[in-house]
Amino acid sequence: MRLSTRHILSINDLTKKDVLTILQTAASFKEISERPIKKVPTLRGRTVINCFFEDSTRTRLSFELAEKRLSADSSNIGKSGSAMAGKGETLLDTVRNIEAMGVDIFVIRHHAAGAPHYITHCTDCHVVNAGDGQHEHPTQALLDAATIRRHKGKVEGLEVVIVGDLAHSRVARSNILCLAKLGARIRVCAPYTLIPRGIEEIGGELTRQRVRVVTRLEDGLENADVVMMLRVQSERFDNEACRFPNTRELSRTFGLSERTLAYAKKDAIVMHPGPMNRGVEISPQVADGPRAVILQQVSWGVAIRMAVLERAILGDTAS
Amino acid sequence: MRLSTRHILSINDLTKKDVLTILQTAASFKEISERPIKKVPTLRGRTVINCFFEDSTRTRLSFELAEKRLSADSSNIGKSGSAMAGKGETLLDTVRNIEAMGVDIFVIRHHAAGAPHYITHCTDCHVVNAGDGQHEHPTQALLDAATIRRHKGKVEGLEVVIVGDLAHSRVARSNILCLAKLGARIRVCAPYTLIPRGIEEIGGELTRQRVRVVTRLEDGLENADVVMMLRVQSERFDNEACRFPNTRELSRTFGLSERTLAYAKKDAIVMHPGPMNRGVEISPQVADGPRAVILQQVSWGVAIRMAVLERAILGDTAS
Amino acid sequence: MRLSTRHILSINDLTKKDVLTILQTAASFKEISERPIKKVPTLRGRTVINCFFEDSTRTRLSFELAEKRLSADSSNIGKSGSAMAGKGETLLDTVRNIEAMGVDIFVIRHHAAGAPHYITHCTDCHVVNAGDGQHEHPTQALLDAATIRRHKGKVEGLEVVIVGDLAHSRVARSNILCLAKLGARIRVCAPYTLIPRGIEEIGGELTRQRVRVVTRLEDGLENADVVMMLRVQSERFDNEACRFPNTRELSRTFGLSERTLAYAKKDAIVMHPGPMNRGVEISPQVADGPRAVILQQVSWGVAIRMAVLERAILGDTAS
Repeated sequence: MRLSTRHILSINDLTKKDVLTILQTAASFKEISERPIKKVPTLRGRTVINCFFEDSTRTRLSFELAEKRLSADSSNIGKSGSAMAGKGETLLDTVRNIEAMGVDIFVIRHHAAGAPHYITHCTDCHVVNAGDGQHEHPTQALLDAATIRRHKGKVEGLEVVIVGDLAHSRVARSNILCLAKLGARIRVCAPYTLIPRGIEEIGGELTRQRVRVVTRLEDGLENADVVMMLRVQSERFDNEACRFPNTRELSRTFGLSERTLAYAKKDAIVMHPGPMNRGVEISPQVADGPRAVILQQVSWGVAIRMAVLERAILGDTAS
Repeated sequence: MRLSTRHILSINDLTKKDVLTILQTAASFKEISERPIKKVPTLRGRTVINCFFEDSTRTRLSFELAEKRLSADSSNIGKSGSAMAGKGETLLDTVRNIEAMGVDIFVIRHHAAGAPHYITHCTDCHVVNAGDGQHEHPTQALLDAATIRRHKGKVEGLEVVIVGDLAHSRVARSNILCLAKLGARIRVCAPYTLIPRGIEEIGGELTRQRVRVVTRLEDGLENADVVMMLRVQSERFDNEACRFPNTRELSRTFGLSERTLAYAKKDAIVMHPGPMNRGVEISPQVADGPRAVILQQVSWGVAIRMAVLERAILGDTAS
Repeated sequence: MRLSTRHILSINDLTKKDVLTILQTAASFKEISERPIKKVPTLRGRTVINCFFEDSTRTRLSFELAEKRLSADSSNIGKSGSAMAGKGETLLDTVRNIEAMGVDIFVIRHHAAGAPHYITHCTDCHVVNAGDGQHEHPTQALLDAATIRRHKGKVEGLEVVIVGDLAHSRVARSNILCLAKLGARIRVCAPYTLIPRGIEEIGGELTRQRVRVVTRLEDGLENADVVMMLRVQSERFDNEACRFPNTRELSRTFGLSERTLAYAKKDAIVMHPGPMNRGVEISPQVADGPRAVILQQVSWGVAIRMAVLERAILGDTAS
């Protein structure tokens, strides 16, 4: 099935059918990473450039492994790529130049919201957003949806609670949009100061009907099927003291422990996009407990990225 | 056709026949990067080490893609490679050590002029110079020649003007030598303070006959077939205040705009080695205009590097 | 032959039979790096992650080439990998996360002694120690043993002297254990202040019988078959002034020159793990002389790492 778009910039741009196509393709790629020989020739001779203008070990590695397992040729440019900008070159010139070397896909992580979208105006290559500022991180939301589907059989009708630092989280934004698209009901749960105004409206009518703001952890967890914890980005907190008393206070009132998890459904699953702050937003008992599907998320990450890369390129020609 | 040399250190060391062999090989490799499957098995199992002791995103990536498209195995060492030196090891010991791991080609960028040449004394591997200090950048000159040939059908007899910071430019030096070898007439055009004394003599008799110094932009452009702009390395200017009033002054008097470009021939092409300072040495209108072949230069870059790598290795055995 | 262990953490953990199996496998891989086509399909589709939490150009490159020549897919994480830790993640969580992406082998270099061993508790992957703190560097000892075997035909019964900064050297520790296991007699030779107390006992009864401490260079070299020089880690010395007067004093009393080398056997070989401080622990005449096998050590390094990777993975299934 072809996607309705040449780029993977945001969940907002994908149709529900696009999301389902990607999930289905990922499901078929999943077992490749579980074989001894983790490699298929699908993208042999294709060129993928990973432009991580913002540091990332985990997401960069996940894309890199996805590319290698599809037999693509991939190269990385990192902060040194900004050296180009440091020499007075614009981002668009950087991208146009690299494209001229013969590139099929750019994977872009950038600290500025909208950078991947901006780039599509100057390139004929496919662009995949690997996280842009506080805007979106679409492959994270897709891998989360894949993990939920695997454990719950579906997403539609589930009660999902997203807990934590919603103010800074591109993961939360992409997940709200993706889960709403797939028919879940979403509670966002945090102290008032960490909930951006109008978060229920980020997907228009669709999210207005499905997103509910909750400011007490126990209310948020009550009867939930899926508990998604967000990372407390304490490096940000310390610079915005007014937002919240401190990390310890947040941990005490919004941290997930065995006690608070008991409010959720008996068979609720616990998710976290990583890296975890054990003992801050999540207790070690829960993180390592039987309900946590945190490592499964990581495994699905490679499969989702394989699917996104394959659909972007082969969607051009095949059905 | 075999090259007359095992190494690509400088245009000065190449015969005219060598240059033509590389251009011809590159022409046959060019379309590989335009295919969906951008890969041939030519250098399968060969080992290329890219030693970029000086930062470079663009040239490093161009070599890396050239290597991957030839199916070579390549690895990079960067500034951390100088960590070896930092631990008291000499450059020669570093190279000898890496060679002992089984290497076919070293691609070397180094801030010291002559470093790649120096290395050839201690290794049996092929050495390719990817830019050494203010000395030479031979693959840049070769890709420029390839671009001119593609657009003008030939190099011989053309009027080429090289404009800008000639004092610091290894690109200019290599281009003067390469263009003279191929029979072009070259004007170097800059304020007096930016023209190294004796620049007409860098290739001996050959360049003495073919290079002319011009210190007014309009005179330089008059009737030119090819306009090569150099990057204003403003990071260097600011430390050598005596050389020139300032970047803005240079831009005003030696910047290429639609107005000044009108002095050149109607079908003149405009080149730039990148990264561009838009609005400094070149106006955006010209950079994005129909006469600019700047991105074509980048495309030829990969093909030239494939040709250089292939000729270096296969020249050993084949004809 | 299967190894008795799934991991290569230390020479201490390997049986003599394991060591011999690795040496024999390496001998069969050695000539691959000497061919034009340096590649075999042995580990095609396997995933190896090189985690160099401590800087290394040489060892990282050696492993990388070993992996590529076995056709494995490999990716690197470096200091940026500690960024994960910087974000509050534990080392175990980092490893578990990467493992969830589908990994066969972790190659780990870490500044903390025991880190690779610690990691085996949380992963089902194979772990190869590429140097941990001042503990062990087993592949270095194996490549040294392979080099000795190649030049002396055997290790058993040889007189080996290890000279230099034993206090900080994981190379020395691994070599003492490996050489003792293979039946050599070992003299450790350094000023008292640089010899850790109890160094003869690091391998229990085995080393107690075979290791002798010598504090005068000439006595150490007397009649030796093999002279192993250690690197003077002057960056460490300067912070521990009490340990030894200074680098120059060490060089004068424990540096290997043609004069002092004359105390060893006529056909003694000279080894150094690199990077060398020419003129400090070893004179240029000796380093470049006919008895030095320093570059052969490097060549064996790739073969040993190929053997270790291959045995780790294929030992699971094959005999």
